[in-house]
Amino acid sequence: MKLLRFGEVGQEKPGLLDEEGNIRDLSAYVKDIDGEFLGGELFAKTQVIDTASLPLVSGQPRLAEPVTGVGKFICVGLNYEDHARETGTVVPPEPVLFMKATSSITGPFDRVELPPHSKKSDWEVELGVVIGKEAKYVSEAEAMNYVAGFCVINDLSEREFQLEREGQWMKGKGCDTFGPLGPYLVTPDEVGNVDNLDIWLELNGERVQDGNTKTMVYKVPFLVHYISQFMSLQPGDIISTGTPPGVGLGMTPPKYLKEGDVMRLGIENIGEQQQSVFRYQR
Amino acid sequence: MKLLRFGEVGQEKPGLLDEEGNIRDLSAYVKDIDGEFLGGELFAKTQVIDTASLPLVSGQPRLAEPVTGVGKFICVGLNYEDHARETGTVVPPEPVLFMKATSSITGPFDRVELPPHSKKSDWEVELGVVIGKEAKYVSEAEAMNYVAGFCVINDLSEREFQLEREGQWMKGKGCDTFGPLGPYLVTPDEVGNVDNLDIWLELNGERVQDGNTKTMVYKVPFLVHYISQFMSLQPGDIISTGTPPGVGLGMTPPKYLKEGDVMRLGIENIGEQQQSVFRYQR
Repeated sequence: MKLLRFGEVGQEKPGLLDEEGNIRDLSAYVKDIDGEFLGGELFAKTQVIDTASLPLVSGQPRLAEPVTGVGKFICVGLNYEDHARETGTVVPPEPVLFMKATSSITGPFDRVELPPHSKKSDWEVELGVVIGKEAKYVSEAEAMNYVAGFCVINDLSEREFQLEREGQWMKGKGCDTFGPLGPYLVTPDEVGNVDNLDIWLELNGERVQDGNTKTMVYKVPFLVHYISQFMSLQPGDIISTGTPPGVGLGMTPPKYLKEGDVMRLGIENIGEQQQSVFRYQR
Repeated sequence: MKLLRFGEVGQEKPGLLDEEGNIRDLSAYVKDIDGEFLGGELFAKTQVIDTASLPLVSGQPRLAEPVTGVGKFICVGLNYEDHARETGTVVPPEPVLFMKATSSITGPFDRVELPPHSKKSDWEVELGVVIGKEAKYVSEAEAMNYVAGFCVINDLSEREFQLEREGQWMKGKGCDTFGPLGPYLVTPDEVGNVDNLDIWLELNGERVQDGNTKTMVYKVPFLVHYISQFMSLQPGDIISTGTPPGVGLGMTPPKYLKEGDVMRLGIENIGEQQQSVFRYQR
């Protein structure tokens, strides 16, 4: 199942994508796609719903982030060996974790705003994991029972704020619009082998990131287990699992986003996003 | 005004403390004390309510965190010169920011749980700022217009997870129960001079932190302004402004929490908390 949310900002409705690629309206059955829904009984019931019985949504509505009310947006740093190398580091002996402000979350086709004083805004396509059940000290073997599904994430990063402004990466990770999610929350049964998915990002039509999740060092079940040793995870929480090589910081010379740029990014079986970039004016 | 939330976990009601120190029930007027309330018209109306007209709450109910639905829990590191020195560092040229998981938030008198494998859990009394209005690129001069009030925070910190587990402090800051808030959200008119408040913490009756907010380096208006340059702040967001000297990490030898310990902590005009410590069993 591919769950989604559609409609203008603040007026989104829950929906799903049927097998023909049409949007169907779920709002008669589901209040919204959030932790309460994902952690409750309705989530399982929705997966066996007769999609043909749901109202077709006409036109081309805006697609929003597919989960709302996200409590934690936890990211894994340096989780692809090639990406660690391009940033001048190595994959650490255990995962590096940091947080993105949940206020950075936007829809997958919404515009990305550069902060007025940003010089080094960068892209990072990542596989997102959506938690479906409270996870506290869970084992790696049982970790997938706590996963509701997957989504595409662009973990936008202001490298000066992240690395040159006195510490802790979150300063460059949580800028408004720096967390496009979606377009779909895809349940595991439709994803196939999550450890072998093409993952890519194109900047103005040029493919700059061209990886595969098979080179991810710490895999999804280990990450859910690992994070749950430090803090519990709640339904609706998001884990962003790290980016493959090809970010602007790793180029010679480094290349960063400017007004008018267009990013297109995707993960096999999970979906595609596109964002254009503008400079926020105070 | 001193706003509060009372009742068992998951069944809290909004209330306030009247001038005689009694709890009054606000639930006929206010759904809950969260960002929607603080950012809306009801917050101002509640401040002129005739408290004697509100129902008295009998007994001694549990006091919960005074704000719920917190979107971001942002902390400032090394913001008291003496504390920076005791941790072997200096106050940085601009604030260090990090995030605490919002799932770490608990009531001011709830028990604090040590993770099963924690050896270095530590205390940090801090002045908390509660945001009342969306703040995005705000100036220092106007910053206080965005503050709904203040509260006491215990920024509990697992030092091994924070400092010895491959990076980014959040790993040791967001453990479940590591964020006691409250008991009150105190509006600025009742706080007096926020830059001259005694702030202290006692461990098993011994005063280990004994500071005053006058030695805070980056003050509240600057912090609101500063953070708003990196990400917008929403009503209900919390800023924890750093701790004065006297944490366990700074002692010779270092001293950490163990089962049975009792922390009592407070800030002049803002309130007092108390937590007992137990070891979480899987």
